[in-house]
Amino acid sequence: MEIVSENRSHGGRQIVAKHGSSSTSTGMTFSIFLPPQAEGGGKLPVVWFLSGLTCSPMNVTEKGEYRAACAELGLVFVAPDTSPRGDDVPDVEDYDFGKGASFYVDATEEPWAKNFRMWTYATEELPALVGQEFPVDIARQGITGHSMGGHGALTVALRNPGRFRSVSAFSPIVAPSRVPWGAKALGGYLGEDEQAWRRHDAVALIEDGARLPELLVDVGSDDPYLDNQLRPELLERACADAGIALTLRRQPGYDHSYYFVSSFMANHLRWHSQRLS
Amino acid sequence: MEIVSENRSHGGRQIVAKHGSSSTSTGMTFSIFLPPQAEGGGKLPVVWFLSGLTCSPMNVTEKGEYRAACAELGLVFVAPDTSPRGDDVPDVEDYDFGKGASFYVDATEEPWAKNFRMWTYATEELPALVGQEFPVDIARQGITGHSMGGHGALTVALRNPGRFRSVSAFSPIVAPSRVPWGAKALGGYLGEDEQAWRRHDAVALIEDGARLPELLVDVGSDDPYLDNQLRPELLERACADAGIALTLRRQPGYDHSYYFVSSFMANHLRWHSQRLS
Repeated sequence: MEIVSENRSHGGRQIVAKHGSSSTSTGMTFSIFLPPQAEGGGKLPVVWFLSGLTCSPMNVTEKGEYRAACAELGLVFVAPDTSPRGDDVPDVEDYDFGKGASFYVDATEEPWAKNFRMWTYATEELPALVGQEFPVDIARQGITGHSMGGHGALTVALRNPGRFRSVSAFSPIVAPSRVPWGAKALGGYLGEDEQAWRRHDAVALIEDGARLPELLVDVGSDDPYLDNQLRPELLERACADAGIALTLRRQPGYDHSYYFVSSFMANHLRWHSQRLS
Repeated sequence: MEIVSENRSHGGRQIVAKHGSSSTSTGMTFSIFLPPQAEGGGKLPVVWFLSGLTCSPMNVTEKGEYRAACAELGLVFVAPDTSPRGDDVPDVEDYDFGKGASFYVDATEEPWAKNFRMWTYATEELPALVGQEFPVDIARQGITGHSMGGHGALTVALRNPGRFRSVSAFSPIVAPSRVPWGAKALGGYLGEDEQAWRRHDAVALIEDGARLPELLVDVGSDDPYLDNQLRPELLERACADAGIALTLRRQPGYDHSYYFVSSFMANHLRWHSQRLS
């Protein structure tokens, strides 16, 4: 692992690091914030943030406004990339497929299957690396994400019961099988058999029996993707049917941007901290 | 004036606006955050933020982490651009001269004199526009800035006694006449007569009799520009000689980036709010 940059911020250390990934067969970049409490020698709880379409780890790192709350609460904050990168990685022109748009699956279709193994990367390889290199208490993990990364956070948590003590999401894609972004991505990476898609669809996973104790979700009422891509009402219904304690807040006037995410970031981190402390 | 974008954030409205400037003979873009209290119909105190070399208003707007504090304190926050823009505006390749590097002067040298009139723009034209278009109490203004914008904040405040109830700066260039960035800029925009430079040099202005009641300045101890471009010790000495109550904090481990600025932004805004309320 190589440190790309390290900056003192809010009393802690904002680090960007790069490492060779066996999952994606590429170099992978992630950002990690170590709060001031990391100087004390103990291990700290960690919150994972999975980012949305077109993003690198730098979007939330620059615009997410998480450091003040993490410094106050003693939380480590890790943001993985949204896809493999590099000249040898296949891509298309579209913003919603290929680089920056992995949807956090292990692709089975060609030419994606070799590099687009972001499920394994985000759920196994990167957590192992972070646990080894940084003072993180792997027994105290929370996960959140934005848009495509909200989808990632929900599916990762639903398929790894007991691993995360706290789960939240900003503007998540909750039922990718049933919306244009998701159908395109799951079809392209996993093929046309929609049965395979269900393991990467939060609503389908809940319908198929996956459970979380509780869940916090914020969406903006003026999010232009609300009705055709995000469809939080499908998650609401699935959670109600399954007895999952969902707190779903439709925040009036907010859109899909980091102006929205940053507005509720501290609130989400408090939610996580209460469950991780 | 044309609204370029408006996003709900932290309960308020983050606006980017554009207007034709008679000072610079170009279009000019600025950002303004209206906190939730602006919905109440009254006029609110305003803090001006002047940005540093290479920046547009978007750097602080995206990375400055000011909205949470402004929303709590009821402060309007305005970030002007750092220079005129456009294909017809003269420029050089250098990052520290021309576009993005006005040093907030009214240039007298050719080919800069026509467009590079940022002193008039920032001290007269934009304040008049903001006072007319937004619910701002022009009797309650504070000013701050970063690096070249810290220089701008100090010189604007020193030459407009009584206009600003609160003045602070992050990593300011305090004596541009005596450092490479400043000597290049002042020489290029104002010509070789160094007497003309003194009106755009905070330390020289204080030596020549300008006064502020008090001043808050943060610099990072690991700022790579500290010793050769910023030179806060010159401001320290000038303020001590002049009886100006300077609070100068050398923040250990911090650098010149927005990771530093954002770490102390809320603290500066509290300082301003205490003096503006």
